[in-house]
Amino acid sequence: MIHAKWYLPADRYFDPDPAQRRIARALYEVVADLPLICPHGHIDPWLLADENATFGSPAELLIIPDHYVFRMLYSQGVSMESLGVPRADGGPVERDHRAIWQIFADNFYFFRGTPTGAWLSHELHVVFGIEEKLSGATAQAIYDQLEAKLALPEFRPRALFERFKVKVLCTTDAATDTLPHHQAIRASGWKGDVRPTFRPDAVVNLLTPGWRDNIDALSEVSGIAVHSYSTFVQALEQRRVFFKSLGATATDHAAVSAYTAELSATEADAIFQRALRGQATPDDARRFTAHMMMEFARMSIEDGLVMQFHVGAIRNHNQLIFDRFGPDKGCDIPERSEFTHNLRPLLNKYGNDLRLTLILFVLDESIYSRELAPLAGHYPAVKLGPPWWFHDSLNGMMRYFEQVIETAGLYNTVGFNDDTRAFPSIPARHDLWRRVASNWLAGLVVRGIVDMDDASEMIVDAAYRLARQAYKFEEQAGE
Amino acid sequence: MIHAKWYLPADRYFDPDPAQRRIARALYEVVADLPLICPHGHIDPWLLADENATFGSPAELLIIPDHYVFRMLYSQGVSMESLGVPRADGGPVERDHRAIWQIFADNFYFFRGTPTGAWLSHELHVVFGIEEKLSGATAQAIYDQLEAKLALPEFRPRALFERFKVKVLCTTDAATDTLPHHQAIRASGWKGDVRPTFRPDAVVNLLTPGWRDNIDALSEVSGIAVHSYSTFVQALEQRRVFFKSLGATATDHAAVSAYTAELSATEADAIFQRALRGQATPDDARRFTAHMMMEFARMSIEDGLVMQFHVGAIRNHNQLIFDRFGPDKGCDIPERSEFTHNLRPLLNKYGNDLRLTLILFVLDESIYSRELAPLAGHYPAVKLGPPWWFHDSLNGMMRYFEQVIETAGLYNTVGFNDDTRAFPSIPARHDLWRRVASNWLAGLVVRGIVDMDDASEMIVDAAYRLARQAYKFEEQAGE
Amino acid sequence: MIHAKWYLPADRYFDPDPAQRRIARALYEVVADLPLICPHGHIDPWLLADENATFGSPAELLIIPDHYVFRMLYSQGVSMESLGVPRADGGPVERDHRAIWQIFADNFYFFRGTPTGAWLSHELHVVFGIEEKLSGATAQAIYDQLEAKLALPEFRPRALFERFKVKVLCTTDAATDTLPHHQAIRASGWKGDVRPTFRPDAVVNLLTPGWRDNIDALSEVSGIAVHSYSTFVQALEQRRVFFKSLGATATDHAAVSAYTAELSATEADAIFQRALRGQATPDDARRFTAHMMMEFARMSIEDGLVMQFHVGAIRNHNQLIFDRFGPDKGCDIPERSEFTHNLRPLLNKYGNDLRLTLILFVLDESIYSRELAPLAGHYPAVKLGPPWWFHDSLNGMMRYFEQVIETAGLYNTVGFNDDTRAFPSIPARHDLWRRVASNWLAGLVVRGIVDMDDASEMIVDAAYRLARQAYKFEEQAGE
Repeated sequence: MIHAKWYLPADRYFDPDPAQRRIARALYEVVADLPLICPHGHIDPWLLADENATFGSPAELLIIPDHYVFRMLYSQGVSMESLGVPRADGGPVERDHRAIWQIFADNFYFFRGTPTGAWLSHELHVVFGIEEKLSGATAQAIYDQLEAKLALPEFRPRALFERFKVKVLCTTDAATDTLPHHQAIRASGWKGDVRPTFRPDAVVNLLTPGWRDNIDALSEVSGIAVHSYSTFVQALEQRRVFFKSLGATATDHAAVSAYTAELSATEADAIFQRALRGQATPDDARRFTAHMMMEFARMSIEDGLVMQFHVGAIRNHNQLIFDRFGPDKGCDIPERSEFTHNLRPLLNKYGNDLRLTLILFVLDESIYSRELAPLAGHYPAVKLGPPWWFHDSLNGMMRYFEQVIETAGLYNTVGFNDDTRAFPSIPARHDLWRRVASNWLAGLVVRGIVDMDDASEMIVDAAYRLARQAYKFEEQAGE
Repeated sequence: MIHAKWYLPADRYFDPDPAQRRIARALYEVVADLPLICPHGHIDPWLLADENATFGSPAELLIIPDHYVFRMLYSQGVSMESLGVPRADGGPVERDHRAIWQIFADNFYFFRGTPTGAWLSHELHVVFGIEEKLSGATAQAIYDQLEAKLALPEFRPRALFERFKVKVLCTTDAATDTLPHHQAIRASGWKGDVRPTFRPDAVVNLLTPGWRDNIDALSEVSGIAVHSYSTFVQALEQRRVFFKSLGATATDHAAVSAYTAELSATEADAIFQRALRGQATPDDARRFTAHMMMEFARMSIEDGLVMQFHVGAIRNHNQLIFDRFGPDKGCDIPERSEFTHNLRPLLNKYGNDLRLTLILFVLDESIYSRELAPLAGHYPAVKLGPPWWFHDSLNGMMRYFEQVIETAGLYNTVGFNDDTRAFPSIPARHDLWRRVASNWLAGLVVRGIVDMDDASEMIVDAAYRLARQAYKFEEQAGE
Repeated sequence: MIHAKWYLPADRYFDPDPAQRRIARALYEVVADLPLICPHGHIDPWLLADENATFGSPAELLIIPDHYVFRMLYSQGVSMESLGVPRADGGPVERDHRAIWQIFADNFYFFRGTPTGAWLSHELHVVFGIEEKLSGATAQAIYDQLEAKLALPEFRPRALFERFKVKVLCTTDAATDTLPHHQAIRASGWKGDVRPTFRPDAVVNLLTPGWRDNIDALSEVSGIAVHSYSTFVQALEQRRVFFKSLGATATDHAAVSAYTAELSATEADAIFQRALRGQATPDDARRFTAHMMMEFARMSIEDGLVMQFHVGAIRNHNQLIFDRFGPDKGCDIPERSEFTHNLRPLLNKYGNDLRLTLILFVLDESIYSRELAPLAGHYPAVKLGPPWWFHDSLNGMMRYFEQVIETAGLYNTVGFNDDTRAFPSIPARHDLWRRVASNWLAGLVVRGIVDMDDASEMIVDAAYRLARQAYKFEEQAGE
C-alpha cells in the first residue's frame, strides 16, 4: 500500500498516547494487508461485468453519483445543478466536469473532520497517488492527474478490484433482477468473487411507487403467476433459489421500523388482494412488511440465506429534492427506532433457531446499549451489523465498540460492511475500520482488559474472520 | 487576562497527553484574546443603559439571581429562602447577604466537577482576582474582597463589558417590549454594541399566563389593533421592523416540541378568536405554535432576521417552587425531543431557501447524531446552535463535537452562545468553549484527521467567525 | 489483597497517559482496601445463616446460577441444558460439572472485553489464586484447584464475607418473607452485618403470577386480613415495621415504567377488589402500581426507609426460555424509559420533602443527561443510583460519570451497588467501580477541573461514604 508523503500520517486515527499508539500500530499491521470482505454494498455489477469498463471523469467518479459528497455541498448553498446531478425531468445541469470539480475543490473545507473527507483524502492520495492537498488552487492540476490515471488500464474497475485485494464483494439486487451482470462475470472467466444479494423491498413494501409493475415483473422472472399471497411467497422462494445459484449467501431488507408481527394466511392474502387492486392502506403496508419479515426469517431457516435488516431512515425527507432529482440524493433522515418490542414476535418464533442469522443495522445509536447489545447478547439468531451510514466514521465506530461490546461481546457482531456505491472508497472504508478497531483494542490492552494474545486474535476477527463467517463465505470457499 | 496563581491551571480542560496538549495550547492561544461574540443571552440591558449601574453585593451578583447556583444547593436540602431568593408573595427570606454567602461557601463542594463550579472559579479568580479557594473558612474574607472590588468603577457593567472585549451582545426581549434600555444605550454615545432579539413566545403561546393582556400590549406598542389572526401577523411584522431598527439581527422562539404544521388562514383565525375569548384548548395552542413557527420562517425569509428555535424544556416542573418563587427557578426539566417528523413541514416549505437561517437548540443529546446532524448536513437553511444549558459544559461540548461534526460538518454549526443571565460569567463560558474546541481540534490533529493549517482556521471559525457570520453581524459591521 | 502474577495488571482500567495513571493509582490506593458497603443485591441470606454453608462445585459457584454467564454462552449457540441450568419441568440437563466447566472454558473467549469476563478473571485470580489463564487447555487443572479451595473452611461464605471486608450487606426480600435466615444470622452471634430489603413487587403488581396467593401469604404473615385496599396498605405498613426490626433501612421497587399517579382511595379499592376477583386488567395493574409508588413514598417519609426504584426491563422477553427454564435466565431486555413526565406526580407531592430519599436506577442511558441529572440536580428527594446491570461496566461507569455529574453533581448520587447474586464477584465489582472512579477523578485533576484535595475527598465519597449516608447505615451504626 502506497502512502502519500504528507497529509495522511501513517499513524492516523490512533490515540496519541505513545503506549496505546504502539500497540494500535502493531495490531493494525497484522490486518492492514488482509484481503477485503465486502458482504454488503451498492456497487453496480456492470462495472465488473465488462473488462473494459471505466469510471469516466473525476467528477463522474467522485462527485456526481455520491450523495455523501453533494449533500454536504448542498447544505452550504451549492446547487445540485451546479454539481451536475441529473434532474429527473432531464433539465439542464452543469456539464463541464472541470467546473464541477472546481466548485468541489473550492468547498472541500466543508468536509474537514468528516468521514467523507477522510475517504476522499485516502482515494486521492492512496488510490490515485495525488500528493497535493485539494483546494481551489490545486483543483485543476489534480484534475489533470486524475484524468490521466483514469485513462490507464490499471485504473479500470477490475484492476482496482484486484489491487484492493477484494476477496468477495456482494451487490444489492432487486428480487426481480435477472442478474445479467453477475452471469456475465461468471461467464467471463474472471476470478473476482462477486455475488448478488436478494433485496425484495420493492415487491414487499406495498406502497413502493410501481409496486404493481414490480409484481408483474416478479411473475415474469419467476415463471410463477403472482395473483395471491401464496403465489407471491412461491415466487420469492423461486427467486431465492436463483440468487443462490449465482452465489448469493444473504438477503437484505430495509424498513422504516423494526416492527414484526405474524398474520394468518387469510389476512395476508386479503391485504395482498387489496394491494393488487391498488387499495392497500398505509396500515396494510405496515402490517404486511411486519409479516413478511417473519416469513423471510422462515425462508432463511429453510434455505440458509443470511438475513440482513436495515432500519430507521425516512427516505426522501426533502420533497423538493426528491421531485427534482429522485431518490438517494442525500436527503434521507433517520428517526427514532425501537427493537425490544418490535422484534419480539420474530424472535419468539425464530430467535432460538441456530439456523437463522439475523443481522441488524440501525441509525439510532441510543439503542446500541439499551436494546441491541442485550438482544444480541442473548438470542442465538441475532448478530449486530457494523455502524451504518452516518455512523460509518471514526467516532461512530468508537461509540459502537464502547456501547455494544461490553454487553454483546465481539463475537455477536459481524465485523465490517463498507456499504458503498463509491468503488474507489472501498479500501478507505476498510482501512478506517481496521485502524479504529486496532486502536480500540489497543485501548483494551493498555487498560489491562485483554492481553496481547487475545487482542491479536480479536483484530483478525474484527477485520476479516467475523464477516467471512457470518455471511457464510468460508463454507462456500471450502476453507 | 490575569490568571490566578493556583487553582486554575493554565492548561485546564486540555487532554493530558503531551502531544495533544501542546497543540491544544497552540490553538487556544490563537483565539484566547479574540473579542467575544454574544449572539444569544439573557443579560438585562438596564445594566448597560446606565453608565453608573452596579452589580450590588456579591450575593446579588453570584447567588440570588442565578438558578444554576441555587438549584444545586436546593437539591441538597438548602432552602431557597435561606439563599435570599425572593418569594412571589413577598414573604420573608434571608436578607443578610453575608449569611447567604456563608451558606454558599460552606456548600461550594457540591459544585465539584460541574460547569457552574468552573464558571464561578473563573469569575472569582480571573474576573475578581481572588487567590484563595472558596470554602466555609475563606468565605467572609473573600466576601470582603469582592465587596471592595464591586465598589470600584472598573467593576461596573460597562467597564467589564469593555474589559471582557465583548464585540456584540444580544439580549432577549418580548415582542411587546419598547426597548427603552436599548434606545438609551444608543442615545448615550457609549460604543458598546448591544442589540435586542425578538422573542414573541408570550404572544404566540396561547396558554401563556396573561396572554390576553400581552395581546393588548401588542396592539398598543404596534399601533395595530389586534383582533384577528391577520392583524396579529401585521403587528408582529411591525414589531420586527422596530427591533431591526434597534439593531436586531435575530428572533428567538422556544417551544416544548419542535412540531411545525401549516394552518389555513381560516383555521388560524378560528383558533385566534377562541383564544381571544379565553377558550383556547391545549391542542389549539399546540397547533397555533406549530403554525406560527412556519409563519416566522416566512417572515425571516422576507426580512432577513435569523430564526433561533429552542426546544425541549418542561418549564416549572416543580409546582411548589413555581407557586412560591415563580418561573426560572432551576426546576425546568428536559423531555425527549423529535425533529425528523416535527420539522418536516417547515423544512419542506422553506428549508431549501438560502435566505433562511434556522438555528436549532436542543436538550436531548440522543438526537444529535440521529436527527440534527443529518438535517443540518442536508438542508441549506438549517444550522445547529451550540450545546445548550445543561450541556454547556466540558463533556457536553465534547459530545457535541464528537456526535455532530462528522455528519454535519463544522460549517453547519454557528459557534458559541453563552446564553447567560450572569454577566460576569460571560468570559468564563467563552473561555471554556475556546479551550474545549482547541482540545477537540488538537485531538483531530494528533490523530491525523486534519492538519495544523486546517485546525488553525477551524479554531477561529469555532471561536469567532461562525457566530459572526451566522448572526449576520459582519454584514452590519461592514466587514 | 493478593494480585495474580499476570493477566490482571496492577494498573488495570486506568488511562494509559502516565500523568493521569499516576494520579488514578494514588486515588485508588486511598480506597482500595476500604470496607465494602453493599446496600443492594441478591445474595441468598441462607449462605450466611449457616456457618457451615458451602458454595458447592466450581460450576455451581460460577456458571449454573449466573445469568450473566450463561446468556452469553447461549447467544453463541451453547444450550442451557449443556450448562446444567435446571429445567422448569425437571427434565434432564448436564449433571457432570467438569463437563459444564469444560464447555465454559472452551468458550471463555466470548467474554473478552466484557465486565463478566473481568469479574470472572478477578474471582479466579484474586479470590481463588489461580495463576493460569482459563482456556479449554487449562480447564480441568483449574477445576482441580477451585474444587480444592472450595473444600477449605476459609472459602465458606462467612469466611469470604470477612475476607472481603463487607461492612454491611443488604439482601432483597419479598414483602411476605418471614426472614428466617436474617433472624438466624442475628441469633447466631456472628458479627456480619446482613440486612433485609423490603421488595413488595409480588403483591403490588396485580398481574404477577400467583398474586392472589401472595395476598393470602401477606395476610398470614402480617396478621391482618387483606380484603381491601386499606387493609392491604395496613399489612404493608406492618411488614415494613417487621423488616425495620431486622435492620432494613430501604425498600426496593421494580417496574417497567416510571409512571406515577395518585388514585382516590375509592378508585384504588375498586381496582384492588377486581384483582381479588381475578379480574384486574393490564390498565388496572399499571395504574395501581403508579399509585402504589406514591403510597410507598408516603410510607418512606413516615418510617424513614430509603426508597429504591428500578425501571426499564422487559422481563422474560424470550418465551421459550421462560417456559423451559423460568425467570431470570438472561432474557430480560431493556426498553426506552421516561421520567420527566412519569415521575412528576410523585415529585410534585413528595419531591421537596427532605425526609424522602428516592434512589433511581435505569437501563436507558439516553436519559442520564436529559432527565435524570436535571431531576437529581433539583429535587431534594431524588438521588441517582449507580449504573445498573448491563451498564455496571467500565464504559457504563465512564458514561455515567461523564453524563450525570456535570448537571447532578457527585453529591446527588449514592456511590456504588454491586447488585449481584454471585457472592464471590462482590469484591471484583467494587474494585472495578473504585478503579474507574479513581481514573475518572484523575481525569478531572489532570484537566485542572478539581484539585487533588477535592479529588481525595471525592474518591472516598464515591467508594464508601455516599452509599453509607444515602442508605442511612451511619445513623444506625452511631458513627
